[in-house]
Amino acid sequence: MSQPGMRQPGPSQSSTSQPGASPSGTSQTGMSQTVRRQSSMRQPSVNSFQELAACENMLDAMKLTAKDVLRGGFGDDPLFYCLIAEVHNHQKPSGKVTVGFAMYYFTYDPWIGKLLYLEDFYVIQAYQGLCIGAEMLKRLSQKAIRNQCNCMNFLVIIWNQASTDYYTRQGALDLSSEEGRHLFRFNREELMDMAGEE
Amino acid sequence: MSQPGMRQPGPSQSSTSQPGASPSGTSQTGMSQTVRRQSSMRQPSVNSFQELAACENMLDAMKLTAKDVLRGGFGDDPLFYCLIAEVHNHQKPSGKVTVGFAMYYFTYDPWIGKLLYLEDFYVIQAYQGLCIGAEMLKRLSQKAIRNQCNCMNFLVIIWNQASTDYYTRQGALDLSSEEGRHLFRFNREELMDMAGEE
Repeated sequence: MSQPGMRQPGPSQSSTSQPGASPSGTSQTGMSQTVRRQSSMRQPSVNSFQELAACENMLDAMKLTAKDVLRGGFGDDPLFYCLIAEVHNHQKPSGKVTVGFAMYYFTYDPWIGKLLYLEDFYVIQAYQGLCIGAEMLKRLSQKAIRNQCNCMNFLVIIWNQASTDYYTRQGALDLSSEEGRHLFRFNREELMDMAGEE
Repeated sequence: MSQPGMRQPGPSQSSTSQPGASPSGTSQTGMSQTVRRQSSMRQPSVNSFQELAACENMLDAMKLTAKDVLRGGFGDDPLFYCLIAEVHNHQKPSGKVTVGFAMYYFTYDPWIGKLLYLEDFYVIQAYQGLCIGAEMLKRLSQKAIRNQCNCMNFLVIIWNQASTDYYTRQGALDLSSEEGRHLFRFNREELMDMAGEE
């Protein structure tokens, strides 16, 4: 596969290439890829969430509406950013299809400082094994470094051996196993109880 | 212990009380408490980090400088917010001392929407058992609900049985044990490798 081209529009959705990035490349299979960041409001961003849910056969489990997503991620003060991998597909009206999706945001640890939290990361099954995930991780790592982050945190379902092995090979540490850090959650019902609200 | 009074300055650091909040109360031990939110730049906020590190005997482990903390949390677009619990102490020049500390921010889950992430939460040992932590959790729960959050996430060191028991009694779910969600991290060295940078 040839080196994929990169297009990373800024908030204005201009489609100029990043410095150093080549124009969209075409692979030996005739498939061209684009990895880009979403940061302003437009309809395909919401579709990406629905495509993701459909890929995981969990469309019914998705409680968020398009309005929720637009409010959370696409205003003046977005709660998250997305990175999208696309391939050309002439059977689609847009001429392309989204095959990879990453959602991330910046958080802060009082001991180590700013970090990039990779909330979700997905390449649809038919396009796995083509280095699309590795290219997205490369872009995310560059973004973390350029934003003065000291690390990248993310959750892995430990029973997914393939994912666990992949990230461990890349040098990731399992802080839940090694340092006993477990993720806890209060759901809305408990929040209401603790807040003293009905 | 009497109901503690609340003071929650806004970004301008005005010290008007929140609607419904009583002025600072005094407990039967003669100790008065204040729980307040920090959201703008001022020196005591950085001190809170250093006090926290000192309390945990980890001052040497704290790599962040005051400048780092000010840049991360106290500009136009802060990465985090803090909630502070204070008690009056006439031996201190300021007349008060910080005894509880919570750091939080708002994040986003593509399945459930906006959530409050409680990054750090601490009450110094000499003031534990006085319901200061419960009062802070109440404030944090109210903040989560008023900001349209569906849940509150946080990490617990699973080997700390007292903490684990406390949160479980409050109804928290251990998503690492129950759903296999493990926290992974790429440190800076691996980020640099993946980014292809030296």
